[in-house]
Amino acid sequence: MVYFDNSATTKPSKEVVEAMVDCMENFFANPSSAHGLGLKAEKKLNESRIKVGNLIGADPDEIVFTSGGSEANNMVIRGLLKPSDHVITSTIEHPSVYNTIKSLEKSGVEVTYLDVDRNGIVNLKELSDSIKPNTKLVTIMHVNNEIGSIQPIYDIVDIVKKASKKAKVHFDIVQSAGKVKIDVKKLGVDYLSLSGHKIHGPKGVGALYMRKGLNISPIITGGGQERDLRSGTENIPAICGFGIASEFCTNNLDENIKKVNNLKSYFVERLSEIDGILINSPLDDSHIGNILNVSFDGIRGEVLLHALEDYDIYVSTGSACSAKKSMSKNYVLPAIGLSSNQVQGAIRFSFSYQNTIEEVDLTIDALKKVLPFLRRINK
Amino acid sequence: MVYFDNSATTKPSKEVVEAMVDCMENFFANPSSAHGLGLKAEKKLNESRIKVGNLIGADPDEIVFTSGGSEANNMVIRGLLKPSDHVITSTIEHPSVYNTIKSLEKSGVEVTYLDVDRNGIVNLKELSDSIKPNTKLVTIMHVNNEIGSIQPIYDIVDIVKKASKKAKVHFDIVQSAGKVKIDVKKLGVDYLSLSGHKIHGPKGVGALYMRKGLNISPIITGGGQERDLRSGTENIPAICGFGIASEFCTNNLDENIKKVNNLKSYFVERLSEIDGILINSPLDDSHIGNILNVSFDGIRGEVLLHALEDYDIYVSTGSACSAKKSMSKNYVLPAIGLSSNQVQGAIRFSFSYQNTIEEVDLTIDALKKVLPFLRRINK
Repeated sequence: MVYFDNSATTKPSKEVVEAMVDCMENFFANPSSAHGLGLKAEKKLNESRIKVGNLIGADPDEIVFTSGGSEANNMVIRGLLKPSDHVITSTIEHPSVYNTIKSLEKSGVEVTYLDVDRNGIVNLKELSDSIKPNTKLVTIMHVNNEIGSIQPIYDIVDIVKKASKKAKVHFDIVQSAGKVKIDVKKLGVDYLSLSGHKIHGPKGVGALYMRKGLNISPIITGGGQERDLRSGTENIPAICGFGIASEFCTNNLDENIKKVNNLKSYFVERLSEIDGILINSPLDDSHIGNILNVSFDGIRGEVLLHALEDYDIYVSTGSACSAKKSMSKNYVLPAIGLSSNQVQGAIRFSFSYQNTIEEVDLTIDALKKVLPFLRRINK
Repeated sequence: MVYFDNSATTKPSKEVVEAMVDCMENFFANPSSAHGLGLKAEKKLNESRIKVGNLIGADPDEIVFTSGGSEANNMVIRGLLKPSDHVITSTIEHPSVYNTIKSLEKSGVEVTYLDVDRNGIVNLKELSDSIKPNTKLVTIMHVNNEIGSIQPIYDIVDIVKKASKKAKVHFDIVQSAGKVKIDVKKLGVDYLSLSGHKIHGPKGVGALYMRKGLNISPIITGGGQERDLRSGTENIPAICGFGIASEFCTNNLDENIKKVNNLKSYFVERLSEIDGILINSPLDDSHIGNILNVSFDGIRGEVLLHALEDYDIYVSTGSACSAKKSMSKNYVLPAIGLSSNQVQGAIRFSFSYQNTIEEVDLTIDALKKVLPFLRRINK
């Protein structure tokens, strides 16, 4: 099997699965319980908080565990914005940011949507010009999930912090955590959203980084877990798995980046053997090595996706969150200026450090076999 | 080890752990992915939805998976109530209901808190008298987590539905699902909240039952999973584990009820050998067999809890969600009329079908050893 859909989700690593099983068998108690079993579970929770914090250079008490990246994004946006506040975002955000802001817009939140250039990068001048006295939040996706653009996050923080004392900066780092070096102390960002299952960790767990001294109105209240920011019995097995996955990424960051960059370079090199393609994710430092988005002329992406399945190769036509909806719903590729044909023919290959050069070879071979046929029948 | 803290959380069963590992290894794809691996994962999701539905007699499309019971409670309360709406609840709810309503009360939601009698049962006359034209929601915990009272849910639905066409009825069944027979078709309830980890399922997963034809404003928006009601990549391993745990409870309900009822009866019988106790959970049909709350004269509950730990016996002084906070925060026991000494000396023994008569014997033996000493030093 060649699994090139790692931006949709990754397979939990062996170590992650083992850690989760260990938790379920030996640390199953409720960490809020006053007895020793509860304390043992709480210790696991604290250890994992350190590990997830380390991934981004954060202190453990700046990490709030959530059920995933979507929840973390909702927490920041819903927890900060009130009617008549102004929020700045981009046109290529994940649906958990985009749709959440859209829903608040209806109740009176003012929104500026920053355009992106051909490489999917926001215009910093436009950002700077958009900041107003009532700007409460600037929320931008660090690495785009469709094409892999890396936003200039240091510049964004710098611009916002110079222009406003009130505006908070949030980055959705679900696609970048563990894949791009992030140091919150240097960055000076206010909030970050992370997810476990994009880094070979478990599903159902994520985290909100909240800079020391800040606060937020919770969207799930109750028993007061996670310092009253996120109630509900802590999901210790998933949190531990997330910790293990984070630790691995922290310890192997440079090596993993090198691996996926090599995969992407090699893939692009070999794609030159195929006619009628357009590479939508440039190969420069403003794009992550994990995502390679390619448009194939005269092909419908979903047809190619299913053709590759016959070779046990798994890719996507776009982010999983919009994969089953009409292709016209893909708003990222149009935003970077692709024609509707190019959007229709787009495939996202998304890599992990677990992928290999041999898998790229298998994919190129398969593409060479299926493309001529698919292009012929599509005429 | 004697684990009598099953109302705080349960140990995932062997079958649940196996199902989760199988999912993480073989069904790890994102169910929203268009390829075959995504479809395989989606199939698992659908199978589990049927199993969880069966636990309460619901159709699969009436089940919305959440990250747990607290989230489900928040979804109903936050998703339905707007300022100037009226909500009826009780004084002995779980913090995820109580604190959520308290926070909405500040923004103009009108609240009636129903008192409970010595057995923790709400007064139906008071409920009936409280329903008003602006009553939007009646939310009551089916089985109380501290003392195990079972509310007369059929009467509650009947009273509310006769008095109002607008008022919706929600029961938090986190402590009762899989432990008391529930049939939503007969009950005619609008919403129910369920949790995985209270029935030997995984943490980090729960469900909202929403009767066909109803709707709710989501609190987590984004990719539109769970029919737009709960966005975020579906936590397939935990959902599968929840399905397995639900299936087991459905298939063994009568037997499991008999087991815990026997445990509780036997425990109460043997407690008669000990002086100076007050049983706070009566042994009649209005109380669940899983929870036995006992006050020990002249003892601080937390001291007894730690003394029992030396015998590898794990109990609690109250619900885990308030266990680490000051005992004065226990609002359930005062609500049923216990004195502050009785509240201070209270211990909750909570059973599962996995517990045994021998474990009760070990506990009684330990109590007989530690109580005289603890009572002496407390003088």
